[in-house]
Amino acid sequence: MNATKFIGTFCILALLSCNEKTSESASENSSGEGITNQEPVRKNPEKGDVDFIFPKGEQGPEENFTGKAFHYAMVMPDSTYTTAVGNVYFEPGARSNWHSHPGGQILIITDGVGYHQLEGKPVDTIRKGDVIKCPPNLNHWHGASAEKGLQQIYLVPNTEKGIVDWKEAVTEEEYPQSK
Amino acid sequence: MNATKFIGTFCILALLSCNEKTSESASENSSGEGITNQEPVRKNPEKGDVDFIFPKGEQGPEENFTGKAFHYAMVMPDSTYTTAVGNVYFEPGARSNWHSHPGGQILIITDGVGYHQLEGKPVDTIRKGDVIKCPPNLNHWHGASAEKGLQQIYLVPNTEKGIVDWKEAVTEEEYPQSK
Repeated sequence: MNATKFIGTFCILALLSCNEKTSESASENSSGEGITNQEPVRKNPEKGDVDFIFPKGEQGPEENFTGKAFHYAMVMPDSTYTTAVGNVYFEPGARSNWHSHPGGQILIITDGVGYHQLEGKPVDTIRKGDVIKCPPNLNHWHGASAEKGLQQIYLVPNTEKGIVDWKEAVTEEEYPQSK
Repeated sequence: MNATKFIGTFCILALLSCNEKTSESASENSSGEGITNQEPVRKNPEKGDVDFIFPKGEQGPEENFTGKAFHYAMVMPDSTYTTAVGNVYFEPGARSNWHSHPGGQILIITDGVGYHQLEGKPVDTIRKGDVIKCPPNLNHWHGASAEKGLQQIYLVPNTEKGIVDWKEAVTEEEYPQSK
């Protein structure tokens, strides 16, 4: 099942790092219970090639990513918001496997340079400030360029339909090579 | 009707500045038709107190905002993604009116310092890296602190239920005063 597979790969990480404020927790911040004052990680100490708005998060599993991609969960799916939100930092050269989303996906690029490809379409270069939509059940992959990392916020809407279906890795032939 | 009122205030602005890439437009970028290479506005030339990931957008209407708030639409609501996404930059002291969302709202703070308040709860201070959820049909307001501006991405899920219901302005008594 899609949701179960998602939980098996990403949601365990999410539980370790979720920065979400619910309506209940929002008012708790004034009493020091919240995470409002948590200092965001501003630079990746290993690379330092892009800005960080959110904590780096936890490394994604090898079965779904080539290279090092770090996931930070922000909103866990539920029946009220029907949306999953998180941040992924891709080190240079890192990318997701091919995958699809039953309810589609929206990507917001906050820093760096990377690639996005819909199955059957050319590879698209994506940069800070870009917003990308991937239709439901269409295979795609996304990740950093070979030279520079990528920071992206993802939104998965319509989570009642499922989250993600993981497929095979992006090959060296499919991934744009360094110039 | 909620959606109509939204269109009357925000969507006209959105048509002027929408940075959304659909699946169709994504592949157009390689031919120079897309907006991948558009240079984001990196600094607000008037204030320069926060970073800009997206273009500044257009000023929101006085009937819904106190002070200067600038809206940049990123994803227009439709039946596929059922989500509206955009960025709002609040100048120091600027804030929304009280309002609610039939399907709830998620805010992602990307820079600066501001306030968020759910009706009946204390004012919460919000900062870069924070993620805030507002439940469906609960009144809230959000905006910048008096001293520093605020950059926020908003997500409105479940747009089939409506977008926003605008209410009265946040008074000087309700808004936290400068120290």
